[in-house]
Amino acid sequence: MNADHSGGPPAVQRRIVLARRPRGVPVEADFRLETAPVPTPGPGEVLVRTVHLSLDPYVRGTLTGRDLGHPPIHPGDPVPGRAVAQVVGTGAWVVAETGWQEYAVVPEGAVRPVAVPPQVPRTAALGALGTPGLTAYAAVTRLLRPVIGDTVVVSSGTGAVGGTAGQLARLAGARAVAVVGGADKCRIAVEHFGYAAAVDRHDPSWREALAAACPDGVHGYLHMAGGEVLEGVAERLAVGGRVVLCGLPDHANETGRTVLPAGAVLRARAVVHGLVVHDHLDLWPEFARRVGGLLAAGRLRTLEEEHTGLEAAPAAFARLMSGRNIGKVIVHVAPPEPIPAP
Amino acid sequence: MNADHSGGPPAVQRRIVLARRPRGVPVEADFRLETAPVPTPGPGEVLVRTVHLSLDPYVRGTLTGRDLGHPPIHPGDPVPGRAVAQVVGTGAWVVAETGWQEYAVVPEGAVRPVAVPPQVPRTAALGALGTPGLTAYAAVTRLLRPVIGDTVVVSSGTGAVGGTAGQLARLAGARAVAVVGGADKCRIAVEHFGYAAAVDRHDPSWREALAAACPDGVHGYLHMAGGEVLEGVAERLAVGGRVVLCGLPDHANETGRTVLPAGAVLRARAVVHGLVVHDHLDLWPEFARRVGGLLAAGRLRTLEEEHTGLEAAPAAFARLMSGRNIGKVIVHVAPPEPIPAP
Repeated sequence: MNADHSGGPPAVQRRIVLARRPRGVPVEADFRLETAPVPTPGPGEVLVRTVHLSLDPYVRGTLTGRDLGHPPIHPGDPVPGRAVAQVVGTGAWVVAETGWQEYAVVPEGAVRPVAVPPQVPRTAALGALGTPGLTAYAAVTRLLRPVIGDTVVVSSGTGAVGGTAGQLARLAGARAVAVVGGADKCRIAVEHFGYAAAVDRHDPSWREALAAACPDGVHGYLHMAGGEVLEGVAERLAVGGRVVLCGLPDHANETGRTVLPAGAVLRARAVVHGLVVHDHLDLWPEFARRVGGLLAAGRLRTLEEEHTGLEAAPAAFARLMSGRNIGKVIVHVAPPEPIPAP
Repeated sequence: MNADHSGGPPAVQRRIVLARRPRGVPVEADFRLETAPVPTPGPGEVLVRTVHLSLDPYVRGTLTGRDLGHPPIHPGDPVPGRAVAQVVGTGAWVVAETGWQEYAVVPEGAVRPVAVPPQVPRTAALGALGTPGLTAYAAVTRLLRPVIGDTVVVSSGTGAVGGTAGQLARLAGARAVAVVGGADKCRIAVEHFGYAAAVDRHDPSWREALAAACPDGVHGYLHMAGGEVLEGVAERLAVGGRVVLCGLPDHANETGRTVLPAGAVLRARAVVHGLVVHDHLDLWPEFARRVGGLLAAGRLRTLEEEHTGLEAAPAAFARLMSGRNIGKVIVHVAPPEPIPAP
């Protein structure tokens, strides 16, 4: 249901609400498509039209009230989400917390302009130049701090955060090694993102493959995978190794409890950091300038898994939360509107 | 078997050797007292006479080849250990790696003079002014870095490392909370070491007691206890909390595997460090000057569990490794010799 091109937004829109709290990895039936009125902005608010919706793992936590940065939602509530949207009336491109719906009213102060270099797709504002990119930038530059010759392992290494983190580590002179699920992703890790090696965690002998890929041990590890990956990589830590706990899908999906072997940390005199991106928002200007520059120069690559239509979001989210996605997951909710002449 | 006062050392000595590799917490029968020749020093070596023997948890690791800083030993080998000893001939007081024996030959360069302030007992060179003290100093000043008003939890809080660490945290303006085994140690923690509160980990409701003792959460935690203590304290971490993994008795005793809950680390954006004291030897001069000054001024207290006779070492070590000791464990192997007139 697109905007009424004869002027003004429609009266009703489609949105996706939580049908029931997921148990374990979310499935399509946890969500429901419904229609709802298009809301009217009050003072200090704007109405925005969702164009490109970002699907992100943090959303899983909100569905059961466990996300650190967002309030919990309840069955019947619209599912939260960030999008590249257009302000109705001006057509201005913004990043806004629209939720999984075609239109949203948001506070004026809560939108930020889409700021991507000219050659870069707008959707980068949701990925490499958005919160996932900032997460990767904070992890690499503030916590992992690789130096030339370090080996940096990135799990979910072809995902929205991991793909950027692996490249940033490589650009810092490190040898980047991806841990990913499946042979396809291994190929993408090496060929598209430039990892020195990739290890398929579905391979029963993945620990041996990791050891072979990291002959000097692991100097830095960015963790966003299941607990067994954390345990396996921890055993390969080099002395003084640094670990960043960034995503815990076992916890997000409530399918398990990720633990870190204390003996491995002590043996390596490692340093382990818990990373929540909201603590690193101060890096935003520096991040945007530097990562924007790398993207503009073609030195940093992105990868998107694109879905079309709001109704595709639940299945795409289930793919994401089971680790089947390849790259940053974007749902194209509506075609762009031309920006009206002033 | 003391030195022959008519001149020179005796021909034979008593020593304790490993009878068999311990399984789990060591027991007295894992060790054997035997006689052996008193060795003769070669060029660049000195013969020292053990006076005060230190018992330390790291020794447990050497018995099964898992200590990070010392080579493994085998059944029949003398048990390694550090002592305050006297150089035979000069009577000079030194700290040396004598092992659990009455006499030892050590390289001249491997002994250091006992340097304790005049009012302080020589045995402090094995505790607050020795490696345990340096461990505490490195943990507090380099890794935990408490600031005024922080809550710092120390497990094994009345032990050789913990007793010093808790006091250093308090002197840095933090509220120090001990986690110890038993009501006696709770009393000692508060009355002798000045902890603000002490929690008895043998109490089934110790987690609730910890929560009550740390209403603002835990800003710093020094871990030297069983895995269940690490898991319990981790759940109370304040945002930005710091954890130092210093001792893992489950691993030392091979009775379990200590793990750190990754969710707690991430939720608190905590920083976890593995501490091996050998990495912090550069702190020694600063540590000796500052901690020596605190001891001399009576601002830092020590606590020793004293045993008499080399034959007491195995049972005392079993006490230590089961956490039944109270304070730094010292075995008085022999009375001091008068220092001969020059």
